[in-house]
Amino acid sequence: MSRVICFGEIMGRLCPPGFKKVVQTNLFELTFAGGEANVAVSLANYGIDSSFVTKVPDNDMGKSVIRVLKSYGVDTSNVLVGGERLGMYYVEKGASQRPSKVIYDRKYSSISMAESGEFKWNSILDGVEWFHVTGITPALSDNCIEITLEALKICKEKGIKVSCDLNYRKNLWSEKKAKQVMTSLMEYVDVCIANEEDAEKVFGIKSNDTDVVGGKINKDGYILVAKEIEERFGCKTIAITLRESYSASVNGWSAMIYTGGNAYFSKKYDIQLVDRVGGGDSFVGGLLYGLLEIDNPQEVVEFAVAASCLKHTIEGDFNQVSIKDVKALMAGDGSGRVQR
Amino acid sequence: MSRVICFGEIMGRLCPPGFKKVVQTNLFELTFAGGEANVAVSLANYGIDSSFVTKVPDNDMGKSVIRVLKSYGVDTSNVLVGGERLGMYYVEKGASQRPSKVIYDRKYSSISMAESGEFKWNSILDGVEWFHVTGITPALSDNCIEITLEALKICKEKGIKVSCDLNYRKNLWSEKKAKQVMTSLMEYVDVCIANEEDAEKVFGIKSNDTDVVGGKINKDGYILVAKEIEERFGCKTIAITLRESYSASVNGWSAMIYTGGNAYFSKKYDIQLVDRVGGGDSFVGGLLYGLLEIDNPQEVVEFAVAASCLKHTIEGDFNQVSIKDVKALMAGDGSGRVQR
Amino acid sequence: MSRVICFGEIMGRLCPPGFKKVVQTNLFELTFAGGEANVAVSLANYGIDSSFVTKVPDNDMGKSVIRVLKSYGVDTSNVLVGGERLGMYYVEKGASQRPSKVIYDRKYSSISMAESGEFKWNSILDGVEWFHVTGITPALSDNCIEITLEALKICKEKGIKVSCDLNYRKNLWSEKKAKQVMTSLMEYVDVCIANEEDAEKVFGIKSNDTDVVGGKINKDGYILVAKEIEERFGCKTIAITLRESYSASVNGWSAMIYTGGNAYFSKKYDIQLVDRVGGGDSFVGGLLYGLLEIDNPQEVVEFAVAASCLKHTIEGDFNQVSIKDVKALMAGDGSGRVQR
Amino acid sequence: MSRVICFGEIMGRLCPPGFKKVVQTNLFELTFAGGEANVAVSLANYGIDSSFVTKVPDNDMGKSVIRVLKSYGVDTSNVLVGGERLGMYYVEKGASQRPSKVIYDRKYSSISMAESGEFKWNSILDGVEWFHVTGITPALSDNCIEITLEALKICKEKGIKVSCDLNYRKNLWSEKKAKQVMTSLMEYVDVCIANEEDAEKVFGIKSNDTDVVGGKINKDGYILVAKEIEERFGCKTIAITLRESYSASVNGWSAMIYTGGNAYFSKKYDIQLVDRVGGGDSFVGGLLYGLLEIDNPQEVVEFAVAASCLKHTIEGDFNQVSIKDVKALMAGDGSGRVQR
Amino acid sequence: MSRVICFGEIMGRLCPPGFKKVVQTNLFELTFAGGEANVAVSLANYGIDSSFVTKVPDNDMGKSVIRVLKSYGVDTSNVLVGGERLGMYYVEKGASQRPSKVIYDRKYSSISMAESGEFKWNSILDGVEWFHVTGITPALSDNCIEITLEALKICKEKGIKVSCDLNYRKNLWSEKKAKQVMTSLMEYVDVCIANEEDAEKVFGIKSNDTDVVGGKINKDGYILVAKEIEERFGCKTIAITLRESYSASVNGWSAMIYTGGNAYFSKKYDIQLVDRVGGGDSFVGGLLYGLLEIDNPQEVVEFAVAASCLKHTIEGDFNQVSIKDVKALMAGDGSGRVQR
Amino acid sequence: MSRVICFGEIMGRLCPPGFKKVVQTNLFELTFAGGEANVAVSLANYGIDSSFVTKVPDNDMGKSVIRVLKSYGVDTSNVLVGGERLGMYYVEKGASQRPSKVIYDRKYSSISMAESGEFKWNSILDGVEWFHVTGITPALSDNCIEITLEALKICKEKGIKVSCDLNYRKNLWSEKKAKQVMTSLMEYVDVCIANEEDAEKVFGIKSNDTDVVGGKINKDGYILVAKEIEERFGCKTIAITLRESYSASVNGWSAMIYTGGNAYFSKKYDIQLVDRVGGGDSFVGGLLYGLLEIDNPQEVVEFAVAASCLKHTIEGDFNQVSIKDVKALMAGDGSGRVQR
Repeated sequence: MSRVICFGEIMGRLCPPGFKKVVQTNLFELTFAGGEANVAVSLANYGIDSSFVTKVPDNDMGKSVIRVLKSYGVDTSNVLVGGERLGMYYVEKGASQRPSKVIYDRKYSSISMAESGEFKWNSILDGVEWFHVTGITPALSDNCIEITLEALKICKEKGIKVSCDLNYRKNLWSEKKAKQVMTSLMEYVDVCIANEEDAEKVFGIKSNDTDVVGGKINKDGYILVAKEIEERFGCKTIAITLRESYSASVNGWSAMIYTGGNAYFSKKYDIQLVDRVGGGDSFVGGLLYGLLEIDNPQEVVEFAVAASCLKHTIEGDFNQVSIKDVKALMAGDGSGRVQR
Repeated sequence: MSRVICFGEIMGRLCPPGFKKVVQTNLFELTFAGGEANVAVSLANYGIDSSFVTKVPDNDMGKSVIRVLKSYGVDTSNVLVGGERLGMYYVEKGASQRPSKVIYDRKYSSISMAESGEFKWNSILDGVEWFHVTGITPALSDNCIEITLEALKICKEKGIKVSCDLNYRKNLWSEKKAKQVMTSLMEYVDVCIANEEDAEKVFGIKSNDTDVVGGKINKDGYILVAKEIEERFGCKTIAITLRESYSASVNGWSAMIYTGGNAYFSKKYDIQLVDRVGGGDSFVGGLLYGLLEIDNPQEVVEFAVAASCLKHTIEGDFNQVSIKDVKALMAGDGSGRVQR
Repeated sequence: MSRVICFGEIMGRLCPPGFKKVVQTNLFELTFAGGEANVAVSLANYGIDSSFVTKVPDNDMGKSVIRVLKSYGVDTSNVLVGGERLGMYYVEKGASQRPSKVIYDRKYSSISMAESGEFKWNSILDGVEWFHVTGITPALSDNCIEITLEALKICKEKGIKVSCDLNYRKNLWSEKKAKQVMTSLMEYVDVCIANEEDAEKVFGIKSNDTDVVGGKINKDGYILVAKEIEERFGCKTIAITLRESYSASVNGWSAMIYTGGNAYFSKKYDIQLVDRVGGGDSFVGGLLYGLLEIDNPQEVVEFAVAASCLKHTIEGDFNQVSIKDVKALMAGDGSGRVQR
Repeated sequence: MSRVICFGEIMGRLCPPGFKKVVQTNLFELTFAGGEANVAVSLANYGIDSSFVTKVPDNDMGKSVIRVLKSYGVDTSNVLVGGERLGMYYVEKGASQRPSKVIYDRKYSSISMAESGEFKWNSILDGVEWFHVTGITPALSDNCIEITLEALKICKEKGIKVSCDLNYRKNLWSEKKAKQVMTSLMEYVDVCIANEEDAEKVFGIKSNDTDVVGGKINKDGYILVAKEIEERFGCKTIAITLRESYSASVNGWSAMIYTGGNAYFSKKYDIQLVDRVGGGDSFVGGLLYGLLEIDNPQEVVEFAVAASCLKHTIEGDFNQVSIKDVKALMAGDGSGRVQR
Repeated sequence: MSRVICFGEIMGRLCPPGFKKVVQTNLFELTFAGGEANVAVSLANYGIDSSFVTKVPDNDMGKSVIRVLKSYGVDTSNVLVGGERLGMYYVEKGASQRPSKVIYDRKYSSISMAESGEFKWNSILDGVEWFHVTGITPALSDNCIEITLEALKICKEKGIKVSCDLNYRKNLWSEKKAKQVMTSLMEYVDVCIANEEDAEKVFGIKSNDTDVVGGKINKDGYILVAKEIEERFGCKTIAITLRESYSASVNGWSAMIYTGGNAYFSKKYDIQLVDRVGGGDSFVGGLLYGLLEIDNPQEVVEFAVAASCLKHTIEGDFNQVSIKDVKALMAGDGSGRVQR
Repeated sequence: MSRVICFGEIMGRLCPPGFKKVVQTNLFELTFAGGEANVAVSLANYGIDSSFVTKVPDNDMGKSVIRVLKSYGVDTSNVLVGGERLGMYYVEKGASQRPSKVIYDRKYSSISMAESGEFKWNSILDGVEWFHVTGITPALSDNCIEITLEALKICKEKGIKVSCDLNYRKNLWSEKKAKQVMTSLMEYVDVCIANEEDAEKVFGIKSNDTDVVGGKINKDGYILVAKEIEERFGCKTIAITLRESYSASVNGWSAMIYTGGNAYFSKKYDIQLVDRVGGGDSFVGGLLYGLLEIDNPQEVVEFAVAASCLKHTIEGDFNQVSIKDVKALMAGDGSGRVQR
């Protein structure tokens, strides 16, 4: 029985070796990833029974998705098989002043064309403790909005906690549509996660004096952002990740949790990036683990940030670290000394 | 100025290394290919100015397609840029009793969703000598049927020769629809190319006593097939490739040209396969070269078969051989002795 | 609940690329395999719930083993974690007159040093239908003999069917010790599997007129071998694989099942080998599937041989084929024609 | 019709993977590059019709050169085919205190042994706007000096602008010979490009107080260097790149343009290097684009430096960036944030 | 005739590509390394005749070890062949806050199970000038303690200088046993090498105010450590490496030699790490070269630190630099400027 | 002290992966090889002390050559370092009807430009038993003819046996020049080796009724060829390899030794080729071993042919087999059964 259900799209990720650009190579590494799948894998790594719900095509790509999720111990019994294709994306790793680049080929994917009623939420959510979704899923299609709503309503009925990562994707929908849809979903959301730009793009809630491109962060501004989300939508916990993009090679990374009227800021890590894609999802994975298993909000945010700090040093979207790895970093050992 | 225009889809081809299955690997080699593009590349290799007409998306995949075609000297000035995606397919190389497998992810490609009128055929076909298309292009969408017809009509007006490779693809359309559409196109076709099953699948014209799976070939039967195509549609030349599939590792390979009431059978090659996908297209490449530059029908079929025999020993859909390479094999040197 | 339990060693398999020798390369591909694990994976591929029982070390090699088995859907809940190391082996692919070479580094593996009583067979075997082991497991250590016996006795108590592949390994024990130990185990065995030399090496039962190195096979001789195994040990079914080693590149492959006093010989396949290691295990995988799901002995042997024929064309020890793939070959399609 | 002609050598570049040394690997990546070819590719990327003039051997290396140049849209109709070999070089990527290393095997290349009169400059330069060459080309051989002079004289006749990157190569000639030859060529040069050591090595013009190895830069000194070049040779524009080599992993990078009696210094970028070889040429590519398409000298130097900053983060000698990429960095976005 | 004998274990080192974790990849690079073998290779690179003494199994792994050592010019005539296996280890490269990880599979190696008397030290050490061993060798097994003692006694008899790198390995023995054994060996040691934690772990001699994890170094503390080693064991020279682990990506690196009552501290290098494993051994290689060929202690420590600084930028345990490379860095050129 | 001296060129060999053509790939594998070096390596593999004499440039390519030869135990103390470059060649592996292709870039190599007198033959050949050279060496340059003659004369003085493989290379010299030079060298040659076309190309001695391209062999004709070589030049032993090129994938392979007036034909092997380049040299390696260590001429030819049969299944020019491997095949085990 899974404690946590994650629902959304999982895609094939094609990545050139090293720092090659997509147009420079004919060799690609294929892994699989997606906002909610990344969270399910993180949770499984921390020993939390998690299940990923999606729809994949009836071909070898769909077969590989299931094989990979199973390998991490993520339950796949609620993965539907059918539809036309698996979404794909290309990740081109940047360096220094050259940004990383994500090219999507995700249209018409099986999940985006799934229909309302296909997922038997009543039974899928039976006995479940937590439901996680991101703003990407409703952005996929109107059907996906409906399916997400179906799930959220049953969560409410069953008293299942709901977390939602805003994750605004400008290629999938307009800010206007995002605002309208996400506003309607927020009434079901207990834990809202956002990065330094999502709240502004989706809800028009802006942290003044923060220059995202320039990498300056204004702590007080983010407290106000969180407060406003709490007030508007009644979320109990708001988590905001604070990325300072010095360059494509080095980032500052920290986060804040706002809960019970208090803000808890984590330690900040300066990270030499190995692979930054999936970094935010690994924060959510750590956060959900923390909210499920750790009491102290300060410790929760430190766990989530340390976990996702480590993910930035790992190839691929999926985080690969254990509770032990995260706790070692939280305990202060970021010296990178060889472990023998 | 291009002598030959090839029109159709070009896709990304993802291929596992060696004999790995798609579900066994996370490393893929990306090349680009498609029935008509393969012909354009073959012709460019033989020094015939050729142009490929298609539509590719405005992203790095589209950019790579153009870069690759240019590298072979194929004219890309008539490639439209736009639409949603580049079609992709996976090729899994078989061996011995295990068949090779092609998995398509080509739906919703830019070319399949191109609209009637987008291609300015009047100017594209200006001064052109030959137009080549396959049965795959009209199978992509109703729009593509219309676009193909637009082109063919202008070919007729301008007196441009037309070749069409039937190339039946069962995942793209039914035999019934194929028959109806291809019949309507055939009136414009001067040179019809088919493999050992196409004529039956598309037009219901069957060569008796040939067992395709078992690898037995009945020469007389194929002459009758060609005759019937000639009679029904008025094609001046009919070319039929004759593959004997002993296994996924070894094939027999020969062909027949039927023209002016006579059938010309080529020598047969027993081939240890390196990469069989694109083999038929390389035959067409050799055939069109032969029809453009060689008089003698026997020599034409020998050229086309020798050219495509060599392609079966080459990685990727694109043939990579020169006229000199083909003529050496035609002259009898299939001994594979090291060339220093 | 698993229907089938497979018990034995799983090792890391390090393989140079292509036809490189071990001393020629510094690049190795790591997969995981072992006689009984290969069977468990085959069964999972055919939709039979199977569980693999072994012991792996508490490090990343052990972690990878579990991850890989899970990816195929093999139950790992009975894998013990502990001990010192994972056994490893190197596979060097031969060609033509150069034999393939397996170099073992399996001594002191966790499973070989597991102790009697560590595996809780009573609960592991609860509700199970079939138990599979090979002659490799008792050959690992005296402890492993004891552990195997513990399992077999409980199988007898619970009425679980037992299959055993003789699989003589000369590096692990002498013919004398093999004979003594295997004789004591045979009283529990319902289905005995052997290849063309095992019966002779282990029990001194020889098929006259068969020249294994020369590749000549004497059918009647093998019937006599099977009869003698039946008489001596009371096995209900005896399966013998018949390999004709023409070279490291091409083998003949067929098998016989002897049951109810009748011998059933399969069709023979001439195979261009891709990877021959694990070929025998894939036969057992097909055989057990057949014995569990198919009535007709002739069909059973045809299924097992077709399944393992296909495995010889697949990289790695694990077979990767589905029931559909096997049935297509049984139905006569070994032509290797491209599947689109 | 090409607007810009680049003339010089293009070589095969063999590069070990990652940070391996040449003696440590048996795997090499082959790309093609050369001082002037790199500029031609940059210009083609920016949409400027460019043509590369060289001589390559009549073998597969020569064939690959032409194929690669074509793929970037560089005109190759003036590439001569003949001579004995393609020059090759090995690039070993350094890190931290370990320098990158370039090992040349370029002697006796087809272009270095080309003879005076082989290139039909009158027709090659017909209708051309700009001619670019570097100090490497005359350093190849006395024949190459003559051929370069032939070209420069015709440029003068036709009123074609000439740019020359001094690019002193100590393995090709002595400082003495370089001084004598380059002095004779400078009378034809409108735009002279130098790095922080070229002017001293070639003309003995030194910027005081600059410690190249230590990485300290003296702006005033470089203005004096430019002034002296202007005075001695009458160049209208002098561009000097200013590299601060902190280590093989991190460099400071900026440049100055001196024109119309004024010096324009660019912004300085601190770059985490991916591949530094070809960095100077990418500056020239940006510079020529700027001089052809942008009025403002400050903007020109900012474009050239931003373009070449990005090249330092790209594998291979060829720059792969578009005008849009460069302008984004010029506009201040060096944050490396993921582009989706 | 070898001037230096190094004695110990050499293992196979399996390393995932790039920053992949061991559980993330199925491709590994195999090299060979070990504390004393690394020193032998360094010395051979500097032109000092060195011989490596060990025992390797009689299989392809043993064969590869010998082949690789020979390729560096290390004498292998005293390598015994026999025993059961070659020790193996996995190196997983860390980055930023994620530590590198070494996973050993070295138990039961041929050398660890070698028996007293197997190595004919009297003849091996005949005519030799220097003998080098580390604390790893006696930690392998009680037999290895005995064998090491046999060698050291003969060194004393023959007046051969002995160096010993403490190299404490907690997986191989307890601090208690290490202290007891190493104390008994120290009476034979002329040159003692330790890193910033060895002296404490093995002899309980601690440098106050140094926080190894935090990366703070107390110079005076290390002088006291060296003095105490000198006093307790009578070593003539004590060398201590001083690593400041800022992260898995960047380290500070320097060292001290204490000899004749004086401490000589080297310059400190801040290094962007390529491969840190084997860094300490490359220091010893440089140190022994210095002690054999250079008079001045300050120059010796500068040579050893510069040599090992460069090793940190090189893939694999073996250092690959020449005397010329080291001297260039000592002379101050750490600018990483391209060498052409 | 080496028993055998091999003298000639060693080149870098760049090879695309699998069956890729040179123009299709940007990844190359670099190994080292050359007619006489291949023989030296074979002999070292069989335990015969051998030394390779050549000249390599003073750069990393030269360094790698020496490292690789040393790894096989070939003595490199007589390798001169200097000159301009290492010869390189590309090997493109053919398949079926497509021939393998060797593209040379060997002009101006250090050895080809070595001068008479550089090699101190008197001391190099001191105490040596056998000297081996091929027709490639004198074909490199007039200097190389002289140097070869210098060596041969001293061989005569010292009573050293001389073997020479005719190895005609049409890119290096004309048949006319080859005839003149080789005739002058033959007076020093005891053992002459030729393949099925050399004797005709070099000396105009033709085996009638043998169709090399067609793969038909006339045994009697080859006896006559050998007799004529014996008569004309007084060679004591003539060895002729007999290749039947069925295709680039399968060859027949056998040989004849003619000595003491008798012809000894070996068994013929039909080989599925892995890498055919260097096959002839591996025959010579086996032949020289046989002539040095085996009495019986029939056994000698069987050893040489079995050894070289195995080489055809091995990647790279160097043979990698042991005496044990060869004897196993001679004893009739070409079944390719897995060795465990």
